[in-house]
Amino acid sequence: MTTIEATAEQVNTQPVVEQLIAHTSSEMEAVNELLLSRITSHVEMVPEIANYLISAGGKRLRPMLTIAAAMMFEPKNSQHISYAAAVEFMHTATLLHDDVVDESDKRRGRFAPRKIWGNAASVLVGDFLLGQAFMMMVEAGDLGALHVLSRSAAIIAEGEVFQLSKANDLNTNVDEYFEVIKAKTAALFEAATEVGAMAGGANDAQREALKAYGAELGIAFQLVDDALDYGGLSGTIGKNIGDDLREGKMTLPILHALKHAPEQDAQFIREHLGKVDADEAIVSRVAQILQTCGALKATIDRALDHAARAKSALEPLAGLNGADILIEIADYCVERAS
Amino acid sequence: MTTIEATAEQVNTQPVVEQLIAHTSSEMEAVNELLLSRITSHVEMVPEIANYLISAGGKRLRPMLTIAAAMMFEPKNSQHISYAAAVEFMHTATLLHDDVVDESDKRRGRFAPRKIWGNAASVLVGDFLLGQAFMMMVEAGDLGALHVLSRSAAIIAEGEVFQLSKANDLNTNVDEYFEVIKAKTAALFEAATEVGAMAGGANDAQREALKAYGAELGIAFQLVDDALDYGGLSGTIGKNIGDDLREGKMTLPILHALKHAPEQDAQFIREHLGKVDADEAIVSRVAQILQTCGALKATIDRALDHAARAKSALEPLAGLNGADILIEIADYCVERAS
Repeated sequence: MTTIEATAEQVNTQPVVEQLIAHTSSEMEAVNELLLSRITSHVEMVPEIANYLISAGGKRLRPMLTIAAAMMFEPKNSQHISYAAAVEFMHTATLLHDDVVDESDKRRGRFAPRKIWGNAASVLVGDFLLGQAFMMMVEAGDLGALHVLSRSAAIIAEGEVFQLSKANDLNTNVDEYFEVIKAKTAALFEAATEVGAMAGGANDAQREALKAYGAELGIAFQLVDDALDYGGLSGTIGKNIGDDLREGKMTLPILHALKHAPEQDAQFIREHLGKVDADEAIVSRVAQILQTCGALKATIDRALDHAARAKSALEPLAGLNGADILIEIADYCVERAS
Repeated sequence: MTTIEATAEQVNTQPVVEQLIAHTSSEMEAVNELLLSRITSHVEMVPEIANYLISAGGKRLRPMLTIAAAMMFEPKNSQHISYAAAVEFMHTATLLHDDVVDESDKRRGRFAPRKIWGNAASVLVGDFLLGQAFMMMVEAGDLGALHVLSRSAAIIAEGEVFQLSKANDLNTNVDEYFEVIKAKTAALFEAATEVGAMAGGANDAQREALKAYGAELGIAFQLVDDALDYGGLSGTIGKNIGDDLREGKMTLPILHALKHAPEQDAQFIREHLGKVDADEAIVSRVAQILQTCGALKATIDRALDHAARAKSALEPLAGLNGADILIEIADYCVERAS
């Protein structure tokens, strides 16, 4: 426990991710090759769109987690490579569909694919990537891992529908918010680390530990994302800030403010939530309200709590190859917000 | 051979489908129960949208083919029920996504779900159904069948992207058209009969026969659909007629007419292809051109050819339980057009 915390405190953001990248680099090279080989198609739009998202930007955090989880043990074959690639395809398919669902103009700082190739192509190439993800899982040949990954695909979609049905719903409560982020984000993190553990040959307890780690990390990650959508703790208003406000997403910062901000401020939020044309001045004012009433800090505090749970889930595995890096990654996921 | 053709000639449309329905009814009851149990969710939009498509309309042709294929042998467990349900979910997911892609207003004579619940919900509930389909396949526990079905999911999506990229492309050729329909339609028919055979315990030759039957039947089915979109041989202009024209789909009737119709008529088609606001008068005129230049007859002739291939693929299996019904279904798929 003491060792873990000491390690975590020494960390600053950049080196941890670089450590994870270095730790997984030779395996990730195989993952990238597999990804590229599975998007080849004589139908040009398929590799064009997939490449646009896969080759550029993106931290590849989820597949790196699968690889790192497997590397804690002794992967006997290349199953972990297939699962990591499948996880990345599932994530990419979700991004393509999310952009259509949210009518987003930007993705990873560039135009969203739907702005270049249209909604139709985004939906269909997403479906293609999902199909390829399932094929790769099937080829890896483990029904147990297939169950984990196919279940997460259904859970993610159900969570996204739940989020959609709760858009602009002022009666949304905190439990419902957590249900949404557990499904739409944490389910894939959880599956990513669990199938990594399975491919590595983890025993049941080790697999459960990595599964719990992934789930908690995913929750922390999404909480931070939801704070960052209003500028995070530093209040940096950059690109795409305020998308959640315009889309009427009932994220924790909003739920907190609706309850704890002065009535006049809460009223301002209610007025502008879900208004697609909310301009920069309005978004800045909302971000300021969230800052002032402590909503962003409360959100980050919850993220810290889940990051701590992620770390303590891994405690029994401390000492295994790369465990220290995964433990530090939990801090990194939250530090993005400051 | 003579017996088969004699049987086919005695048939009229309604009784064959009714025969298939009666033949598969007790198994299909289990399929329907499974379908309904797998769309339950506290997220209300999920069962609402899924039910809207699954409970109403729809012939359930594909899952019936899976069941009928399995019943030719001796299914030892309920795998064929799971596969039939998975095939129907894959089909339903495709319908939901296709409506978004084609911006369709109608589906099975009613409003398309996207007109009631929106594009976002249609995309996401489609994803949910795909996830459930994969879960059911995984639970059935046969990696071979999983490979067949996951491969078809990727092929279908790739075919749909190819079709999209060929929209309004006057250089599309007949080979490309067949590539599209083999992928977007025949791949699921083929997988439906193949996994049915696998679940039934067919040997390799029998499985290949049913796979070939499904593929040929699917091609015939889509050719007829493409003729029906311009009124079919009877020239009945009903609801949704002309959608393919407005969407710029390069279907065989259009390809035939562009090549064989008098230049003035071909020019009329070129002018109106892909125009979303093409009104009833324009659609009627195009349908008349397709009728006059023999494009619809040529399309139905190709469908008859593939239906014949479907039947001859099943010849070695004649005498097995329900083989006669599947043979007649091939005729039914084409007779819809007259």
